[in-house]
Amino acid sequence: MGTTRLEAFSDGVMAIIITIMVLELRVPHEASLDALKPVLPVLISYVLSFVYVGIYWSNHHHMLHVTSHVNGAILWANLHLLFWLSLFPFATAWMGENHFAAMPTAIYGVVLLMAAIAYFILARVIIRREGPDCVLARAFGRDWKGKISPVIYIAAIALAFVSQWLAQALFVTVAVMWLVPDRRIERVITPE
Amino acid sequence: MGTTRLEAFSDGVMAIIITIMVLELRVPHEASLDALKPVLPVLISYVLSFVYVGIYWSNHHHMLHVTSHVNGAILWANLHLLFWLSLFPFATAWMGENHFAAMPTAIYGVVLLMAAIAYFILARVIIRREGPDCVLARAFGRDWKGKISPVIYIAAIALAFVSQWLAQALFVTVAVMWLVPDRRIERVITPE
Amino acid sequence: MGTTRLEAFSDGVMAIIITIMVLELRVPHEASLDALKPVLPVLISYVLSFVYVGIYWSNHHHMLHVTSHVNGAILWANLHLLFWLSLFPFATAWMGENHFAAMPTAIYGVVLLMAAIAYFILARVIIRREGPDCVLARAFGRDWKGKISPVIYIAAIALAFVSQWLAQALFVTVAVMWLVPDRRIERVITPE
Amino acid sequence: MGTTRLEAFSDGVMAIIITIMVLELRVPHEASLDALKPVLPVLISYVLSFVYVGIYWSNHHHMLHVTSHVNGAILWANLHLLFWLSLFPFATAWMGENHFAAMPTAIYGVVLLMAAIAYFILARVIIRREGPDCVLARAFGRDWKGKISPVIYIAAIALAFVSQWLAQALFVTVAVMWLVPDRRIERVITPE
Repeated sequence: MGTTRLEAFSDGVMAIIITIMVLELRVPHEASLDALKPVLPVLISYVLSFVYVGIYWSNHHHMLHVTSHVNGAILWANLHLLFWLSLFPFATAWMGENHFAAMPTAIYGVVLLMAAIAYFILARVIIRREGPDCVLARAFGRDWKGKISPVIYIAAIALAFVSQWLAQALFVTVAVMWLVPDRRIERVITPE
Repeated sequence: MGTTRLEAFSDGVMAIIITIMVLELRVPHEASLDALKPVLPVLISYVLSFVYVGIYWSNHHHMLHVTSHVNGAILWANLHLLFWLSLFPFATAWMGENHFAAMPTAIYGVVLLMAAIAYFILARVIIRREGPDCVLARAFGRDWKGKISPVIYIAAIALAFVSQWLAQALFVTVAVMWLVPDRRIERVITPE
Repeated sequence: MGTTRLEAFSDGVMAIIITIMVLELRVPHEASLDALKPVLPVLISYVLSFVYVGIYWSNHHHMLHVTSHVNGAILWANLHLLFWLSLFPFATAWMGENHFAAMPTAIYGVVLLMAAIAYFILARVIIRREGPDCVLARAFGRDWKGKISPVIYIAAIALAFVSQWLAQALFVTVAVMWLVPDRRIERVITPE
Repeated sequence: MGTTRLEAFSDGVMAIIITIMVLELRVPHEASLDALKPVLPVLISYVLSFVYVGIYWSNHHHMLHVTSHVNGAILWANLHLLFWLSLFPFATAWMGENHFAAMPTAIYGVVLLMAAIAYFILARVIIRREGPDCVLARAFGRDWKGKISPVIYIAAIALAFVSQWLAQALFVTVAVMWLVPDRRIERVITPE
C-alpha cells in the first residue's frame, strides 16, 4: 500500500490546522488601530505556530518521500502526530490571549514536546518497516536536531515559570534551527 | 469511473471533521491550570472521537483500495457515511461539555451506531458492484467486528441511563478492538 | 492544462462547505433531550443542504470527468459556482434557526437558484471549449432536470411567502429528482 | 522533488481560506430582510476577498504548472505567501463589519500588499531555481501587472484616510485587472 493517500490526508489535516488558527484572531468591534492591540499577541503566537506547522509539514513531506510502503503501525503513528499538531490552535490561542503568561507558555511547550516525540516515533516506525539500511535510517543517523529539540522544549517548560520570555526565546530558537530544511535526507539521496 | 476523486473528497471531509472538533475546546480566559479543568472532559471526548474518525479513515482507506469502480450507489452510500461522521463534532462536544452525562452519552452512541450501519451499507453496496468473489466480499465473510460493534453500541445506549461510565467503557472497548487495523483485507490480498 | 488541480481545489472547497455547516449546530448547555429541540430544525436544514452539496459534488464530478482541458473561462465559471455553494452554510443556518420562516426560506431558494445558474454557466463554458460534439454537449441536449430546477426554485421563492412548507416541499422535490445520479453522461459514454 | 504535494497543500490552505471567510457572515437572529442589512457589507467584502483568493489560486496554479522542481527555498516562499493569504479572513471581516472604515480598509490594503510581495518573492525564488531561460522567467519579463499592483495598493493604503471609497475602488480595479487570467505564461508556452 502506497503513501499517496496518507500524504493527502496528512496534508489536509495540516492545511486545516494551519488555517483555523487564524479563527482565533478575534475581529475587533471598533475600527481604530488601538482596537488591534489585543489581537497583536495572538498574531505573534500565530506566526510562531504557523512556522512550526510549516516545519512539520516540510519534514513530513521529506520523510514520506523516502517511505515506500505504509502499514498499520505507520498509519497510527502518523495519526498520533496529527493529534498533537491538532492541539496547536488551542495552545496557540490560549498563550496569545494571555499575553504569553507562564502556564499557557508551559502548556504550549508540552504540546510542542509531544509533537516532537510523536514525530520521532513515526520516524522509528517507518525505519523499522523500511529496514536499517533505508535512506531515512541513514539520514536520521546523526539526528542531532531531533535529539536536541525535546531537551530544549523541556528546558523551556521549566523556565516558563522563571521567565516566560526565556521560554519563548527557546521556542523561537528551535524554530529557526529547523527552518533550515531537513537537508539530511536530501544529502543522502543526492550523490555528492 | 475510478475511486481517486471519491477518496480525495472523503479524505477532505474526514480531515476537516477530525480537525474542527478541536474548535470545541473553548480557550479559557484565565492563564491558570485551574482554568484548564473545564476543558479536560471535552479533551477526553475529543481523544475518543479522534480515534474513532482515525479508525473510519483507516478502514475506508483499506476498503476503497480494493474497490475498482464507483457507481452512483457507492457514491451516495459514501456520502451517507460521511453525513454521520460529520455529526461527531457536535455529539463529541455535547458529551464532553456535559461531563459524559447520560443523555449526551446515549446520543453519542446513536451517532456511532448510525456510522457503523452506514459503513456496513457502503461495504454491501461495493460488494454488490464488485461481485460476490471480490476481495472485499471474502474479507467481510467473517466480519465479526462489523457485526458485534452495532450490538455493543446498542447495549451502550441503553446502559448509558444506568451508568454512563459503563457506556463509555463499551465505546473504548470497541475503539480498542478496531484499533488493530482491518487485517481481513490484507490477509486476503497477501498470499500466505 | 488538465483538470486535476481544478478538481482537487473544488473537492477541497465542497468538502469544507459540507462540513462547516455542522458548526452551526450549536451545542446545547444542558444534557437533556429537551435541550436538543432547538437544534432539530437546524439539523433538518443541514440534512437538506448536505444532500444538495452532495448532488453538486456528484454532478461536478461527472462533468469534469468528461472535460479534457481547462481554460481561464472554465476556471472562473467554476469559482463562480463555488462562491454560491459557499453561501449554503449561511443560508442553511439562517433558515434552520428561524424554523423555516418565510424570508430565510426565500433567501435559501435564491442561493439554490444562483448555484443552479452558475452550474448551467459552467456547463456551457465547458461545452464551448470542448466543441458542440463533445460528450457533455450530447449529455446536456435533453437536460430537462437542469431546465426545470430553476423554474421550481423561482416558484418556491414566491410560494415561501404563501406557505413556507410548500416551498420546502419543492426544495425536497428537486433534491430527490437529482438524487438519481446524472445518468445522462453515463448513458452517452457507455455504448448501448 | 516534484510539485504535486506542494500544490495539494497550497490548494488545501487556499480552499480553507476562501471558505472560512464565510463563517464571518454572522447568522442574524431575526427572520426579516432588515436583519440581513448588517450582513451586507461583510458579504460585499467577502466577494472582494473571494475574487482575490481566486486570482491567487489561479495564478499560483499557472506558476507551479511551469515549475519542475521544489527546493527548500521555494517551499518556504510558498508558505510565506500562504501566511499572508491566511490573514484575508481576519482583514475581510474587520473591514466588512466596520462598513469599510478608513483604518480597516488601510490594513486590508497592507495584507493585499504583503501577499503581492510574497507572490513576487515566490516567483523570483522559482526563477532562480529553474534558470533565467525558464518559461516563468520569460513570462515575468514584462510583468507590468505584478509591478503596478503593489504601487496601487500603497496608493490605496494612503488614500484610505482621505476617502475609503477611493481606496475600495483601487482594490476593485486591481482585482478586475487580474481577473483576466495570467495569459503571459500561456502565451510563452503556446507557440504562436
